[in-house]
Amino acid sequence: MPLAKQFAERINALRYEDLTPVAREWVGTAFIDTIGVTFAGVVEEGPQILMRMPGMGAPGPCVVIGTDRRTGPLDATLINGTASHVLDYDDMVGSLGGHASAMLVPPLLALGEYLGSSGRDLAVAYVAGFEAACRIGRGVNHHHYDKGWHPTATLGIFGTVAASARLLNLTVDQTAVALGLAASLASGLKSNFGTMTKSLHVGHSTRSGLFAALMVKEGFTANPATFEHKQGFLDVFNGPGTYDTSRMLGDWYAPFECDGAADTGLKPYPCCGSTHSTIECVIDMAKQHDLKAEQVAALEVMPHRRRLPHTDNPDPQTSLGAKFSQQYCAARALVSRSAKLEHFEGNEPFDPVVRSLLQRTTARPHPEWADDAPLQWGVEVVVTMKDGRRLVSRVDDYKRFGPGSRTMPREAMWEKFEDCAKRSLPRTQIAPLFEKLERIDQVESLADVTRLMQAPAPTRAAAE
Amino acid sequence: MPLAKQFAERINALRYEDLTPVAREWVGTAFIDTIGVTFAGVVEEGPQILMRMPGMGAPGPCVVIGTDRRTGPLDATLINGTASHVLDYDDMVGSLGGHASAMLVPPLLALGEYLGSSGRDLAVAYVAGFEAACRIGRGVNHHHYDKGWHPTATLGIFGTVAASARLLNLTVDQTAVALGLAASLASGLKSNFGTMTKSLHVGHSTRSGLFAALMVKEGFTANPATFEHKQGFLDVFNGPGTYDTSRMLGDWYAPFECDGAADTGLKPYPCCGSTHSTIECVIDMAKQHDLKAEQVAALEVMPHRRRLPHTDNPDPQTSLGAKFSQQYCAARALVSRSAKLEHFEGNEPFDPVVRSLLQRTTARPHPEWADDAPLQWGVEVVVTMKDGRRLVSRVDDYKRFGPGSRTMPREAMWEKFEDCAKRSLPRTQIAPLFEKLERIDQVESLADVTRLMQAPAPTRAAAE
Repeated sequence: MPLAKQFAERINALRYEDLTPVAREWVGTAFIDTIGVTFAGVVEEGPQILMRMPGMGAPGPCVVIGTDRRTGPLDATLINGTASHVLDYDDMVGSLGGHASAMLVPPLLALGEYLGSSGRDLAVAYVAGFEAACRIGRGVNHHHYDKGWHPTATLGIFGTVAASARLLNLTVDQTAVALGLAASLASGLKSNFGTMTKSLHVGHSTRSGLFAALMVKEGFTANPATFEHKQGFLDVFNGPGTYDTSRMLGDWYAPFECDGAADTGLKPYPCCGSTHSTIECVIDMAKQHDLKAEQVAALEVMPHRRRLPHTDNPDPQTSLGAKFSQQYCAARALVSRSAKLEHFEGNEPFDPVVRSLLQRTTARPHPEWADDAPLQWGVEVVVTMKDGRRLVSRVDDYKRFGPGSRTMPREAMWEKFEDCAKRSLPRTQIAPLFEKLERIDQVESLADVTRLMQAPAPTRAAAE
Repeated sequence: MPLAKQFAERINALRYEDLTPVAREWVGTAFIDTIGVTFAGVVEEGPQILMRMPGMGAPGPCVVIGTDRRTGPLDATLINGTASHVLDYDDMVGSLGGHASAMLVPPLLALGEYLGSSGRDLAVAYVAGFEAACRIGRGVNHHHYDKGWHPTATLGIFGTVAASARLLNLTVDQTAVALGLAASLASGLKSNFGTMTKSLHVGHSTRSGLFAALMVKEGFTANPATFEHKQGFLDVFNGPGTYDTSRMLGDWYAPFECDGAADTGLKPYPCCGSTHSTIECVIDMAKQHDLKAEQVAALEVMPHRRRLPHTDNPDPQTSLGAKFSQQYCAARALVSRSAKLEHFEGNEPFDPVVRSLLQRTTARPHPEWADDAPLQWGVEVVVTMKDGRRLVSRVDDYKRFGPGSRTMPREAMWEKFEDCAKRSLPRTQIAPLFEKLERIDQVESLADVTRLMQAPAPTRAAAE
């Protein structure tokens, strides 16, 4: 039986009753976090350019989050997906090697509105999609990640297909074909990290995954044996000998990947996840020793080598570049003892105090941690003071906020949501929306929820 | 200087005055052939499903070839691009390892209508795009082709970007960024050959290439150094040591790739190019020896090994599968002494005489031709007769019809165009359109040409 069909059987077997309380709670968390960061993302230049494309956003039933526009499910998924990831502030998952919910929430919201689905349907589809993306990820990582693919897009697309197929009630055979079709649409290279294109990977790929499911529903054909084909996904994207299909098939849902198995995290900082340990470590050192930038002779960060190829950037020239610079994030964390949205906006990446320290900041792979070391997210930081002191600190693993160790309290989730949402949404809608999203699985009519995601039309004065 | 910028300088330098007479003539030939096969393709199931997608084809200025619809440039490119390739009847190019014009004509036509470009502008953009795709192909093939990528899509996308960038008058820097963006959108696996997805590769990818150029024109960012980046196009798609950038840079336009250098061919048969030598060889043998299927004990075809991984299919179950079956094409050629559109339609692939012979037909790689043998398109055919005779014939290279050896006479081009166009176009429009396309570079207003590509709205009776 083709691999895709074995995945499809598992995708189609899931029922709402199977979901654990933690999995159900995580769905609400994922919708809050993803839609929250989308409100902050949609006003950024990338999504704004996207909305100006000819023919883009023609009228339809699906909300464009944080705007007064409604469009078809494909365009809504493309725009919302891109906006959800543009700040690099959305959740991340270890077993996928990327971001999961940005590839699930936008297509499910758009397709759910298009079909008139219930929140309960969305919850099942979300969990099935999350599981599919992570399970396939277990079979191809770390090679897939290290090679230069952007797994959020190139693996996340299968999560989108799985979730969309579930919501569309595709048969097992149709779901397998849709997965096969999506393998031919998977794309995204790490070489474009630090540019607007990174978030477009998400919008483009999740649109493609939804598109694949919709096409197959109408009878479009593809090869369901495309994963194992000698000119198919596994051998072409990864290469012979670099994957393990038994790890893909494993015990689906036991436990649920989104029940902690997948090492899921909400992001406290609006920048690349590979910089998070560095930021945490430097903030702690700065507070503990009351460091000032002008006292520092050298700031040296040594993350695990897997974190560096896409974040070794000693001199970022744009806000997006700063989000993918170990050096900027370290210097900023020392100067500001935090890393917030505003630190990656406007002229902040060129703040003279940070820039001065940046010249004395270096990054290199930790010399002792092998490729397969357990501390894939660890970092060691050395601060050499001008007075000769040498401070060393080490974070073995950055603090996670996922369902397996839910340490981000509801209050912190609310603060992040409000801080993001106020950038495009009237304040009166923010708290009611938060409450509805928290129990999205109990919502009977999605229209009641998406109404709260719409911003009023800009007035002429505001538009000018 | 990044590779993409070196490409961009060459793309932007081309002027109409630089085009040779053969190159100018080829542009007309390419528009005729590509638009012709699109008329026949648009009525196929794949493009019809595509047009039913929600939000697809919202009203705009660009013709959907062979229909009464007009839509935006992105949707028009997607639909026309898919329709142009669905029959696998469009032109092919050796140095690219795929089909060139299906990735150039649909986006140029749509963008040209959107911008109000002249035919002269289109001709320059077409030649620049053709050159870019083929030159990049020279640097990554045959490894890129053999690995399992579909070069028409994964390399052709750079042709689309180059052509679109030229028509949009992007700067050199913008063109380089658009090429970098497109590297992150490149996709398409050979494992989906023989399904509807193969032609969607073309529509999807050429839409993506146009999209990349339009996005960059508005200020979207990507990494112009994405080809040579350690997590970029060359190392991720091909792999270290499997490409040669000097072959990409070479002497652009000297001679023009579409002036014969690229080994360009118009297809006489509506099926995979890798089956063409087989068909030609079998037809010749059948005619020479007046072969009947019932006399044949065994039909054995041995093409170069590069032709087989995607065409070794002894028992195709669909029309599209038959187009990618060496065995079906060989048996059909012996039975019908031809290979025409109707042989891949309806129940024809299950014709009992052909099916009976198919059971005695085998395909294997030619035992004497190495990977890098000069006879990449050759084939040897052995027919063993029931009376014991053994007939052997060999084609060293199939007859080409490209600009370097223009052996497809105007009359044959007209016959192919008419045979295709009549499937969706009123007969009165066919000859006037052929004449306009033949000198597309002399056309002042594209609207005069695209008007002739529109079919009347279907009557209620016809629709039912």
